[in-house]
Amino acid sequence: MTAENPLTPMGRRAKAAARILARTPTDAKNRLLHAIADGLLAHQDAILDANARDIADGQAAGLRANLIDRMTLTPARLQSIADDTRNVAALPDPVGEEFDGRVLPNGLRILKRRTPLGVIGLIYEARPNVTVDIAALSLKTGNATIMRGSSEIRRSNFAIMEVIHDALEKTDLPRDAVQYIENPDRAMVGHLLKLDRYVDMIIPRGGAGLHEFCRQNSTIPVITGGIGICHIFVDASADLKQAVPIIHNAKTQRPSVCNALDTLLVHEAVAETLLPRVVERLAQDGVTFRAEERALAIVGDHPAVQPAGPDDFDTEWLSLVLSLRVVSDLDEALDHIDQHSTHHSDSILTNDWSHAQRFLDEVDSAAVYVNASTRFTDGAQLGLGAEVAISTQKLHARGPMGLKELTTYKWIILGEGHVRP
Amino acid sequence: MTAENPLTPMGRRAKAAARILARTPTDAKNRLLHAIADGLLAHQDAILDANARDIADGQAAGLRANLIDRMTLTPARLQSIADDTRNVAALPDPVGEEFDGRVLPNGLRILKRRTPLGVIGLIYEARPNVTVDIAALSLKTGNATIMRGSSEIRRSNFAIMEVIHDALEKTDLPRDAVQYIENPDRAMVGHLLKLDRYVDMIIPRGGAGLHEFCRQNSTIPVITGGIGICHIFVDASADLKQAVPIIHNAKTQRPSVCNALDTLLVHEAVAETLLPRVVERLAQDGVTFRAEERALAIVGDHPAVQPAGPDDFDTEWLSLVLSLRVVSDLDEALDHIDQHSTHHSDSILTNDWSHAQRFLDEVDSAAVYVNASTRFTDGAQLGLGAEVAISTQKLHARGPMGLKELTTYKWIILGEGHVRP
Repeated sequence: MTAENPLTPMGRRAKAAARILARTPTDAKNRLLHAIADGLLAHQDAILDANARDIADGQAAGLRANLIDRMTLTPARLQSIADDTRNVAALPDPVGEEFDGRVLPNGLRILKRRTPLGVIGLIYEARPNVTVDIAALSLKTGNATIMRGSSEIRRSNFAIMEVIHDALEKTDLPRDAVQYIENPDRAMVGHLLKLDRYVDMIIPRGGAGLHEFCRQNSTIPVITGGIGICHIFVDASADLKQAVPIIHNAKTQRPSVCNALDTLLVHEAVAETLLPRVVERLAQDGVTFRAEERALAIVGDHPAVQPAGPDDFDTEWLSLVLSLRVVSDLDEALDHIDQHSTHHSDSILTNDWSHAQRFLDEVDSAAVYVNASTRFTDGAQLGLGAEVAISTQKLHARGPMGLKELTTYKWIILGEGHVRP
Repeated sequence: MTAENPLTPMGRRAKAAARILARTPTDAKNRLLHAIADGLLAHQDAILDANARDIADGQAAGLRANLIDRMTLTPARLQSIADDTRNVAALPDPVGEEFDGRVLPNGLRILKRRTPLGVIGLIYEARPNVTVDIAALSLKTGNATIMRGSSEIRRSNFAIMEVIHDALEKTDLPRDAVQYIENPDRAMVGHLLKLDRYVDMIIPRGGAGLHEFCRQNSTIPVITGGIGICHIFVDASADLKQAVPIIHNAKTQRPSVCNALDTLLVHEAVAETLLPRVVERLAQDGVTFRAEERALAIVGDHPAVQPAGPDDFDTEWLSLVLSLRVVSDLDEALDHIDQHSTHHSDSILTNDWSHAQRFLDEVDSAAVYVNASTRFTDGAQLGLGAEVAISTQKLHARGPMGLKELTTYKWIILGEGHVRP
């Protein structure tokens, strides 16, 4: 089956490049990252020109304004992408770390050594910054990459790939360390997902549909995630003066991202006090609300509030909409979260010690909060220095993934003629 | 798609049981494991009787003797399974461990807490010990399990499941913590592999075909592994007195397992001395050899030696057969291993410091050895206390998997009204 995969030659070249990258010292990898940053700035005109042609096509095709915005490169954005690349160079290299070392009773010395994963397959939507971002993180950790971006930004990506390939050649590293699938046929995505003989991990960067497609079709482990139906539960004992700013921050600070708030659950004991304040404050910034019956009875008269529909509590809004529900107690809140959360980020606002502990114990999400905004679920905010993706699955990595999550380990076993009795 | 999955009710019950198990303290989980061990011995007659009927059917169906042997339970084997279950009770519980804790510059306190994975799907061949083994390891780590064993041992498995369910009831834990797919239709395996809404990890325990089937068909992360084409490379500087016992141990101590030796690579400088000794010693214990041209020129006259066929270096022998090849130098050995290894366990015998380092750096296998038999790639041998499986993939866990590898973690984030600037 894999023998007929049209991407097999690409996979074979990636594997060969990965073998070289795995032995490349940190200094050389950092020089490469600086060469990429330099190249992005030196070839700014060519990249922006290619990007302008992608944008013109996108506008002619009637793409939505927010998609066009994500596609657009400017001198300032290119500078910031170059800066990010230099930041990755400045981070510590996790490859080569040795841990869990010990001498066994029989004298055998064992340890684990952190190594690159090998080859990473990236499938992503129309964000040219992701091309550089994932290339930089993969190269820093000694991994080769096969990329497939969406065709809306293919000219931008080709121009960026030229910079990356130049930098690889200048620093005597293999061009095949970063490869891009130029064939625009959508079937290529399916072929990449079946290239298990050569590719060790698939990272999808895009919406829920892309993640689901990858999970359904891949024979390679997929890091799924990034989809967040996030909750805040305001308990009876919560500090209500803290609550409004936290809810405001979680919903409005950047509504289009996965860790933004989607559903507010309020304990009945504080609902009549808190809900009107929340609606008043957030409506000032354009938020509209979908309220279930009990919440509707309290704030239903406000023009920004409408009754919740049947799917509203299972919707990741990614926009200035907030679902509202009044619950009778902590158990009802936990049950709601258990049924509706995508296990990304959920928070309790409370001053009750035992309720905080139960929430931390029982909410099965990548990030569980007490008295804070859900917006901190982010590699940079949590001190990882960089972010590959946010995983909502449970294997390998959960929550924000940094450089370490692009590595694996090997067992090293050192004997002096040891045989097993 | 998942809505029509006939295993959905089972998945839902497993998830509910997992939520309870996740909050069950270590003491209660240990009491359960002892209750299972007690039950296995108390119901020994019923289990052995069920097993005898499976064996009778297997013999009538003409199953191979080694398969019949793996299927067979005896009082001594049942005692040993019960002892193993008590050993798991005695191991430390990884669940609840907290690590990577720190206070961020903004005062936010973060840490990771180790938690159960949730629900584990087990698909396995005709080994009734695996039923207890995986149930014990999963329960110890707070995971629910959905099992599908091969139909040859279904009566044995039903009798064992009755013991497990009794023990769960006696210790006030949910019966659904361990469920067995009783429907013998092979399509159920495919349905289990698509139950991604409820199952967090698939563990296949069986041959290469089962692993490949799971990888091709699962929408759930699969721990593939257990397939080992293992190499020993004898370098020019090796201590030849150590080499023969190591090779003998790796090949003959238990030839049917994945970490047994499949291919011996010998440096040309020592081939004429070493190969005759190896053939002489191992042939005494019934080993036969498949030699490529240069090895054949040295030991081809021995009656146990025949020329290697085209697939012999890509065969996991699992029996008393050993492939032989003479190589010109370390690079040729590394290239051979790169092309033919299944990345399980590979060893170099050498006294050359730089060759040992290159081998450790460049061989991309789960376990890489210097001067020792490959037979140590095993959870018990490496001090894990128990072994779930041996992974030859690179995500989540590589090499022997113990209790810790049946867990994930959640990020815990504690604020005092923190919002993201």
